[in-house]
Amino acid sequence: MENPTFFYSTAAKTGQALPEKHFEATTQEIETALSAAEAATLPFAQSSARERANFLGQIALQIEGRREAILERYQQESGLPQGRAQGELQRTLSQIQHFKQLLEAGHYVQASIHKTAEGPDLRKMLYPLGPIVVFGASNFPLAFSTAGGDTISALAAGCPVVVKAHPYHTGTSSLVAEAITEAVALSPFPNGVFAHLQSATHALGQQLAMDHRIKGVGFTGSLAGGKALCALAQEREVPIPVFAEMGSTNPIVILPEKMKKEAQTLAQALADSVLLGNGQFCTNPGLVYALGKLPDSFSATLEEVFTKSPTGTMVHPNIAEAYQKKLQAIQEKFPALKLLQKAPFAPALGQVSADYFQAHPELGDEVFGPFTLVVVHDNVQALAQSIQQLDGQLTATILATVDDLAAYPQIHPLLVQKVGRLLFDGVPTGVAVTTAMQHGGPYPASSDSRFTAVGSDAIYRWLRPVCYQDAPQAVLPEALQDHNPLELERNINNQWTKETL
Amino acid sequence: MENPTFFYSTAAKTGQALPEKHFEATTQEIETALSAAEAATLPFAQSSARERANFLGQIALQIEGRREAILERYQQESGLPQGRAQGELQRTLSQIQHFKQLLEAGHYVQASIHKTAEGPDLRKMLYPLGPIVVFGASNFPLAFSTAGGDTISALAAGCPVVVKAHPYHTGTSSLVAEAITEAVALSPFPNGVFAHLQSATHALGQQLAMDHRIKGVGFTGSLAGGKALCALAQEREVPIPVFAEMGSTNPIVILPEKMKKEAQTLAQALADSVLLGNGQFCTNPGLVYALGKLPDSFSATLEEVFTKSPTGTMVHPNIAEAYQKKLQAIQEKFPALKLLQKAPFAPALGQVSADYFQAHPELGDEVFGPFTLVVVHDNVQALAQSIQQLDGQLTATILATVDDLAAYPQIHPLLVQKVGRLLFDGVPTGVAVTTAMQHGGPYPASSDSRFTAVGSDAIYRWLRPVCYQDAPQAVLPEALQDHNPLELERNINNQWTKETL
Repeated sequence: MENPTFFYSTAAKTGQALPEKHFEATTQEIETALSAAEAATLPFAQSSARERANFLGQIALQIEGRREAILERYQQESGLPQGRAQGELQRTLSQIQHFKQLLEAGHYVQASIHKTAEGPDLRKMLYPLGPIVVFGASNFPLAFSTAGGDTISALAAGCPVVVKAHPYHTGTSSLVAEAITEAVALSPFPNGVFAHLQSATHALGQQLAMDHRIKGVGFTGSLAGGKALCALAQEREVPIPVFAEMGSTNPIVILPEKMKKEAQTLAQALADSVLLGNGQFCTNPGLVYALGKLPDSFSATLEEVFTKSPTGTMVHPNIAEAYQKKLQAIQEKFPALKLLQKAPFAPALGQVSADYFQAHPELGDEVFGPFTLVVVHDNVQALAQSIQQLDGQLTATILATVDDLAAYPQIHPLLVQKVGRLLFDGVPTGVAVTTAMQHGGPYPASSDSRFTAVGSDAIYRWLRPVCYQDAPQAVLPEALQDHNPLELERNINNQWTKETL
Repeated sequence: MENPTFFYSTAAKTGQALPEKHFEATTQEIETALSAAEAATLPFAQSSARERANFLGQIALQIEGRREAILERYQQESGLPQGRAQGELQRTLSQIQHFKQLLEAGHYVQASIHKTAEGPDLRKMLYPLGPIVVFGASNFPLAFSTAGGDTISALAAGCPVVVKAHPYHTGTSSLVAEAITEAVALSPFPNGVFAHLQSATHALGQQLAMDHRIKGVGFTGSLAGGKALCALAQEREVPIPVFAEMGSTNPIVILPEKMKKEAQTLAQALADSVLLGNGQFCTNPGLVYALGKLPDSFSATLEEVFTKSPTGTMVHPNIAEAYQKKLQAIQEKFPALKLLQKAPFAPALGQVSADYFQAHPELGDEVFGPFTLVVVHDNVQALAQSIQQLDGQLTATILATVDDLAAYPQIHPLLVQKVGRLLFDGVPTGVAVTTAMQHGGPYPASSDSRFTAVGSDAIYRWLRPVCYQDAPQAVLPEALQDHNPLELERNINNQWTKETL
């Protein structure tokens, strides 16, 4: 037996190690988790949506029961304030409720039946892919981590989940994992439907993504991390889908009349959005494309809010280091960039001309943290070119009056080509968990723009269609049986209906 | 300017070159096709579903107008008989009609609206990925080639298509391309919505899949070809989705009572399915898993049909060579395999014990052509193990009486894990074009089991969701406007309805 090694997570505010020991997953633990996940695959796939709904409800209850401990550890590890901790926990719980309701309704299986006098009887519905590895995200220790959207949507789909805890908040992750493990114990499912493995290195995640028993990957993190996972998944003898959400600069386009009318309000709202969570949201607006000269009140307000804003704590000292290093690098590499930062690690504001920006496309790369770059365009052609130069994005925002939209009708169709979500008001931070949400965009915003990481449709990442041809009623899943015992909306011969056959 | 080189396609029956010269796509032609596809992307994405429906209708008319020429060239190039040529042309036309109807109904955009008193107004619908490269399939010169399911579903989605003609039937491909090009000329769309490029080498296909203007790939062919394309697509600076349908052994499981009662009928139906199109269907059943001793009448009928069946023509001499070579290789490598083949290139039948089969899993690999391998299992545990050993499959078939299914309830759930379509009667050849069809299965049957290559859902390979947040009515696509001008079924606050807002 190998000697277990351990590590500590860090208190983000002090940079000091927290007292709790976290043990590196041993070879034996990894093997147990994977073989149990494999053994749980078929029974979990055959469980009813209602059983899984109850299970999700129990997970929420168990998390609630550990609320204070989770909130405390979350704040220690991430350095994020109490309000954020409470808000993110609430969001995590309401995400779980959202998927619980989706399962209770049951329609998500997309039952489709084609039965005519001639031809075969064809009945199709969605079926779980099998065990999924979920990587905790550094920037959302709750809502995109152990019991976050990836885990909950995969469990809802009927896929066992193996969580690779994020080393920056392994303590929080362990508390949440305890809650899920307790919910598994109270469920009719085998233990293998959930496992929690921890490590301070990348090797564990790579091993999990390469294991033949794993059938899919959910990841939220850096472009480098997501790319590496996609490459690994493709090297396997049997490649598997990876849904990697890899961040974005989330450009905000401001058209002239809107700018003229609301300069100060826009500057304030923009600054608030950039500074929210100390710039650590994947929808943080890191680019502002303005058309026309910037009004003084816009620049003044922006500069004032940025310089008055205190230096926040990043979720880990490494992230703070990376932020400052990147800012220094672009300042050195691009001297024409006007950079305003009152102190190292503080919020920062950049400004650059469209010509210079277009000549140096790396300026459009994400700087993870409380930074935004304002690009000033003299004319609409330049603006169109800056839009065409964009990489794929989670979001873009177009702030415009009705007259602006009429005067520049070419702008929003260009933006649609680049994004998963296009906003016409407000700011991109804040991602509602609804059926109509899209959180995922053209590469590199996410690895597959056809899926979303937030909202009920996130479940479709983990499901594949299976068609039953000429199957006897006794063999068919309930969702496809003639008498529609689950009262589902089904597509029968191209009509959506709740009727029986 | 480079010197154009040319090649000839081959008459499958004689192995002789056909007289028509096919010119290798020049650098200039390739560049023109790609830049025109890029230029057509936005206008085509903004076209209405009804305009694209009319376009598909015109494609069908133009193909109809060239029917005799297409059928003649098809038979020359592929060696397939007139009945098959007519059948495949008819299937191609009805596929086009199927997608035309899908566009006329319009619901495929999956409009989803979330609008409540609090929170943002979110409206989501599907949006085309952009230019798609389609690779013609060797085994279906019409239904899975130039105007086949991949091309038609991508055009229906609003994606420009660049077809890489298959070198085995470039003449047929060119005639069909003429029809599509004429339909483009009669449409309101730019010429770049369709291009047809030909080459006798692999280099052209690789170049197209690597080009930054291409946003997706549709491929039907070998595992080696599909794997190579998936790897290329992943190496790109911006990786793109590849839907590769890479074939399958389509196992047929026969349970004891069914076998006892219908031995002769089953043997005849199985032989007919294996020999259909000389074994060149992707749903060709290349494996038969029998439980219990084979009745003499089953073996005798199977042997009789296989030995009496004439040696057919493969669609290209290379494919015939590959078939024979693979049979020889397995015969040499696996001496315990009982192989029955009356002459080289003729239909062939193999038989092997479950023990031997499980000890030599390569015996489960696809042999493309009129071959099937019968694996005899003594007990249900052995059968379960053979099923668990299967790679991902397009289909599996379980031939069983009601009592068989009750006696062996563990069998069909094991099969579901391996397939896209599970049949309980008949044979897997024949793939109906309906909403409920699934043609695509776990890897290596296809590169992404979450999508289908046949049926209306094939359109979802080429579409991604876009969410509009707080957009003015004037900017919204019709599908998302309050008054529902297209009369679509929409998901409004989790209810499917045709109502207005």
